[in-house]
Amino acid sequence: MKNIKISALFLLMGSFALNAQSLKSPDGKFEMNFQLKNGVPFYNLKYQGKTVVEDSKLGLRLLRDGDIKFASEIESKDQKGKDLSEGFTKTAEKFDSKNESWNPIMGEKKSYVNHFNELAVTLNQEANDRYIILKFRLFNDGLGFRYEFPQQKNLNYFIIREEDSEIDLPTDMKAWWLAGDYDSQEYQTQTTNLSEIPAKWPTSYDGNASQSLIKNAVQTPLMLKKEGKDQLYVNIAEAAVINYPASNLELDATEFKFKTHLTPDAQGAKGYMQTPAVSPWRTIIASPKAEEVLASKMIFNLNDPTEYKDTSYIKPTKYMGVWWEMIIGKSQWAYSTANNVHIGKTDFSKLTPNGKHAANNTNVKEYIDFASAHGFDALLIEGWNIGWEDWFGHSKEFVFDFITPYPDFDIKMLNDYAHSKGMKLMMHHETSGSATNYERWADKAFQLMNKYDYPSVKTGYVGNIIPRGEHHYSQWTINHYLRIAEKANEYKIMVNSHESVRPTGLSRTYPNWIAAEAARGTEYEAFGGNNPDHQTILPFTRFMGGPMDYTPGIFQTKLDYYFPGDTRFVKTTLVKQLALYVVMYSPLQMAADLPENYARHLDAFQFIKDVAVDWDDTKILSAEPGDYIHTARKAKGKDEWYVGGITDENTRNYTVDFSFLPKGKKYEATVYADGDDADYINNPQSYKIYKKTVTSKSKLPMKLARSGGYAISVKPVK
Amino acid sequence: MKNIKISALFLLMGSFALNAQSLKSPDGKFEMNFQLKNGVPFYNLKYQGKTVVEDSKLGLRLLRDGDIKFASEIESKDQKGKDLSEGFTKTAEKFDSKNESWNPIMGEKKSYVNHFNELAVTLNQEANDRYIILKFRLFNDGLGFRYEFPQQKNLNYFIIREEDSEIDLPTDMKAWWLAGDYDSQEYQTQTTNLSEIPAKWPTSYDGNASQSLIKNAVQTPLMLKKEGKDQLYVNIAEAAVINYPASNLELDATEFKFKTHLTPDAQGAKGYMQTPAVSPWRTIIASPKAEEVLASKMIFNLNDPTEYKDTSYIKPTKYMGVWWEMIIGKSQWAYSTANNVHIGKTDFSKLTPNGKHAANNTNVKEYIDFASAHGFDALLIEGWNIGWEDWFGHSKEFVFDFITPYPDFDIKMLNDYAHSKGMKLMMHHETSGSATNYERWADKAFQLMNKYDYPSVKTGYVGNIIPRGEHHYSQWTINHYLRIAEKANEYKIMVNSHESVRPTGLSRTYPNWIAAEAARGTEYEAFGGNNPDHQTILPFTRFMGGPMDYTPGIFQTKLDYYFPGDTRFVKTTLVKQLALYVVMYSPLQMAADLPENYARHLDAFQFIKDVAVDWDDTKILSAEPGDYIHTARKAKGKDEWYVGGITDENTRNYTVDFSFLPKGKKYEATVYADGDDADYINNPQSYKIYKKTVTSKSKLPMKLARSGGYAISVKPVK
Repeated sequence: MKNIKISALFLLMGSFALNAQSLKSPDGKFEMNFQLKNGVPFYNLKYQGKTVVEDSKLGLRLLRDGDIKFASEIESKDQKGKDLSEGFTKTAEKFDSKNESWNPIMGEKKSYVNHFNELAVTLNQEANDRYIILKFRLFNDGLGFRYEFPQQKNLNYFIIREEDSEIDLPTDMKAWWLAGDYDSQEYQTQTTNLSEIPAKWPTSYDGNASQSLIKNAVQTPLMLKKEGKDQLYVNIAEAAVINYPASNLELDATEFKFKTHLTPDAQGAKGYMQTPAVSPWRTIIASPKAEEVLASKMIFNLNDPTEYKDTSYIKPTKYMGVWWEMIIGKSQWAYSTANNVHIGKTDFSKLTPNGKHAANNTNVKEYIDFASAHGFDALLIEGWNIGWEDWFGHSKEFVFDFITPYPDFDIKMLNDYAHSKGMKLMMHHETSGSATNYERWADKAFQLMNKYDYPSVKTGYVGNIIPRGEHHYSQWTINHYLRIAEKANEYKIMVNSHESVRPTGLSRTYPNWIAAEAARGTEYEAFGGNNPDHQTILPFTRFMGGPMDYTPGIFQTKLDYYFPGDTRFVKTTLVKQLALYVVMYSPLQMAADLPENYARHLDAFQFIKDVAVDWDDTKILSAEPGDYIHTARKAKGKDEWYVGGITDENTRNYTVDFSFLPKGKKYEATVYADGDDADYINNPQSYKIYKKTVTSKSKLPMKLARSGGYAISVKPVK
Repeated sequence: MKNIKISALFLLMGSFALNAQSLKSPDGKFEMNFQLKNGVPFYNLKYQGKTVVEDSKLGLRLLRDGDIKFASEIESKDQKGKDLSEGFTKTAEKFDSKNESWNPIMGEKKSYVNHFNELAVTLNQEANDRYIILKFRLFNDGLGFRYEFPQQKNLNYFIIREEDSEIDLPTDMKAWWLAGDYDSQEYQTQTTNLSEIPAKWPTSYDGNASQSLIKNAVQTPLMLKKEGKDQLYVNIAEAAVINYPASNLELDATEFKFKTHLTPDAQGAKGYMQTPAVSPWRTIIASPKAEEVLASKMIFNLNDPTEYKDTSYIKPTKYMGVWWEMIIGKSQWAYSTANNVHIGKTDFSKLTPNGKHAANNTNVKEYIDFASAHGFDALLIEGWNIGWEDWFGHSKEFVFDFITPYPDFDIKMLNDYAHSKGMKLMMHHETSGSATNYERWADKAFQLMNKYDYPSVKTGYVGNIIPRGEHHYSQWTINHYLRIAEKANEYKIMVNSHESVRPTGLSRTYPNWIAAEAARGTEYEAFGGNNPDHQTILPFTRFMGGPMDYTPGIFQTKLDYYFPGDTRFVKTTLVKQLALYVVMYSPLQMAADLPENYARHLDAFQFIKDVAVDWDDTKILSAEPGDYIHTARKAKGKDEWYVGGITDENTRNYTVDFSFLPKGKKYEATVYADGDDADYINNPQSYKIYKKTVTSKSKLPMKLARSGGYAISVKPVK
């Protein structure tokens, strides 16, 4: 006994001497080990005993520590010895756990489970007499960790030069990645091994209205796969980016090691911190099953519950828009032929109309007629307000006032008209990146929205950010998006932000920030085109932290319909567009095409009219990033299910197993399928619609065309 | 006759061929010649036939011309061929003139004369099919010129890399100069020849809360003197800096040539321009008499009249302040011992008071008692609002909310108390340079002022500007100050801005922006000390574009009165402090010392109580920059005159000639003079006060001590 005791003691001592600590997930499958090596913090991650992440370093380099009296506030020299990256000893550790359910206001399920074991390690840096806390939460779907900086005598204000959180993978892996950038997430996803990224990186992006590329870096969320034996899917992302810049990942492609790379401000500093403060959570979701990655709610679980007092105004929204016709070039946002206008000075009624202004009373009424007749909640109208003549490419600060309509847009009449038909209008605030200007006008802009009962606004950030030198994902701009969300909440307004930062689960804390674009959406089909596998990848990447306003639903995929000889086309079949409403979750969904195209395919349009956008339950039936996704969801508060499946550039067969349905009940499934001869290039509009009675025992074989899909609405038999 | 005609014709042709044009001042003494040499614009300036400014180049270099589609909006390459600096031909010229009087709302005279001849030259740049206008205005006191960029097909948006307006002086000159900087004007003025500036420049500045020095550059307004034969005083400055950065001057010290050097933004660009646009006016005031430079109103004349609808709330203000006691270190702005507070989160009532918070109810009431008893209009109180614990040196964006008082400051009670005694309180908005934060809170802050009837606010910009990377004199920040002035006008509030840009005559257009600090003021006596000649220079430099809140009136000049052993002292005699109220014009004047010091010298204090701050007339009796200034002014609407004289580190005698008084009338002069043994170091508080009957024929010999002065109030004999 004595020997055992002594060795146990030695083990304990050894463990303590090694400053090492272990954490396990609730089901015991994941293990995280924390360790200090020569005063430098490391962690690793194992799944079922196999290494997911090798020993990886943590730490931050600082620009400055402590008060500055009379001197420039940014020093460019390294602060060796003054960084938060070494010289640590572990002085405390605290275990905790939580197992709760919480109900998102809108979501993929009625209720999310938040179940984790937590380890908080206090690290003291003796040389500077200060400490930080590393907090690890291990879920059944993976790991989240963050830095915490408690308020204390010797840590009050500091500026981050760079965060150096590493994720050191043991092997090469298949990766679905975007070129790293401080301003844009709109590149095509690349599919290569990690080792191939440097070679591919230079051709992995195209031009953008605002871009600042980071060589050999990639964006988050990042999707990875270890193929073969011990197959494992790994997703790397971040949660709760608040008062901190968003992070890209630098890659060492020979070591398969990633490191955080924060977005700088105009001066190159990466974060201005006042304690108590925390970093975002760095998240590593892992599973042998791709479906479980898609099903993971870790990123939302790591965000704090909301403190909003009233969330009753936050509602799911299905909308149409005066938008696609401008995107394809059929009409314009601008009203006049001028190219140089002064908000508040130019008399727009005296300008020469260009005859192509889409947001005019007649056109908008037609959209309202159609959208209301088909039960849509709202109509977005872009180009309603003065300023579009020179809105882009000039770094123009006072670019819009967000409150003055063009002469041919009667804001009162159109809102009354929409309301009389049971619909609302959706506001549009394109900021042109001029965030300071938007903040100046936000109160007046939101007051106007309240006056005319606009429940939601689509915002845009096309172009470089003003304050000039800040980036779309800099700390200042992150805080700008949050200020706008909070102010919108004061006015009971929902926000859908385009070209903003990608969501990092913030919809839990800021539930009126209901969606964002922040990736390459449907509009790019009219710009460069989206790869056929694009939509089979995005849910594994962009969607992990929150919904995307992907704006699907294009029926007229070939644009030569409008412009003879035009080679542009949406690279999917019509039916795949229907499936996107199920496969890509958002509480805000657009039927993006022109009414006339829906009118020509009212039978297919019925699916879009029927499909829910808010869910009691979600089943990821089958998924492989870059190849296919098959999803079934139950509409919130209804006995209805919607099933959707999509494929990449390959045809595919898939048998839908309806075992998700309640047992012993009959349902009528309306199936929207690619025609037998459908093809996204050659015959995109070939589809068939048929009904079938199904029960939980039913199986339905589906044939998907190249870049095709299927969509099924399942309702109780009457 | 034929020969004369032909030669006249040749002259004309030659003149036109040389693209040359002449302009004369109304009195014919100044002559400006404009010329294109090989397509490059030049001007020169002569006074009485002698060269004041040699042929000097004009032009601008651009960063970008025209629209950018998908690309970075700032190119770092030169835009040779695309600049607005060469390739010009003169296509039009237009002469004009004006002779008007206008009444400043508050000023040194009831009425200013604006009399000039103008030449506007249209220059076409054929290669780029665009044109600009150079506008010259020649006054009897000198030249102003600016660039105009009319709206036109090929000039809509452009970004300035640098403005290259040269001022090429013919000889070395004596110069009173500040080291060039993008953020601070608080350096000691240096007095050297131009040729000596490079050698002196490295030691010409001290540390500052926010500074960005420009090597070998100097600031404007700049005072120069050509000594000896054809003595000439020259002042170089700018007028109407609106939507444009402020300019320093680069010096070529061998050529005696200055060139504009604009303040950059965070990215290095110098101005974002949308036509129609204009540059500020570059001003060159010149006279054989220093007094006439001081008397010049050119900079104000070059500003546009105001468009404010109601200016009745704009009034002269004499105030005291809870301020100097913090500046000298006797008390603090902050309330508590904390060093890390969170506005909106920290409960200040739970913090430990530091026992040194000056802005507490008891102390403020005592100031109100004293100031109201002595007829002051207002009491400034700094440190009244939460946030001072960590306000400085942290680049903290949300540093103040401008609306929440400290627990020991009862804003309602104190305002009621002041009002009951016929006084108002003066608001204080220290922004800490966080301009974005100030704009966010400005409406609420001004609403609070209206609620408690604060007529004016002192603003401050101590520390680096946020948006980070912008400078105090960048275009963005210039526009910020103007936005604040305009918003304050909506609330009928007067603004006195500290650490802002120096005024450039903008009080004509924005009359509620009544004063600024924007130079080394009295507070520096407690920091590094001001040179004894400092106040004899500032009116020739800082004051040329507008009033300065110099905050004079320190009676207790030696600070060892408070802190035994303290060597700091205000480097003037007590009486010189009185003279400053006359010599340094401002419609807002502070009696800056503590009440107890005035109480000990109520006889001297009487001058401050009596002196006007708004004037019907001003006579600069005698002045030499760096040596002495003697000024007489008539109070607005009263039959009272005030005379003040100051000297530098030398004793000086001066005989005041009262011929400015109306003839045939008797006045009682109360004379405040340095005592016979007075000396700013050894005996600063030695003074004598006596009365004398004077008429327009009187002459009064005054003896000024070292860094001394005299002050005389002249009222009708009762």
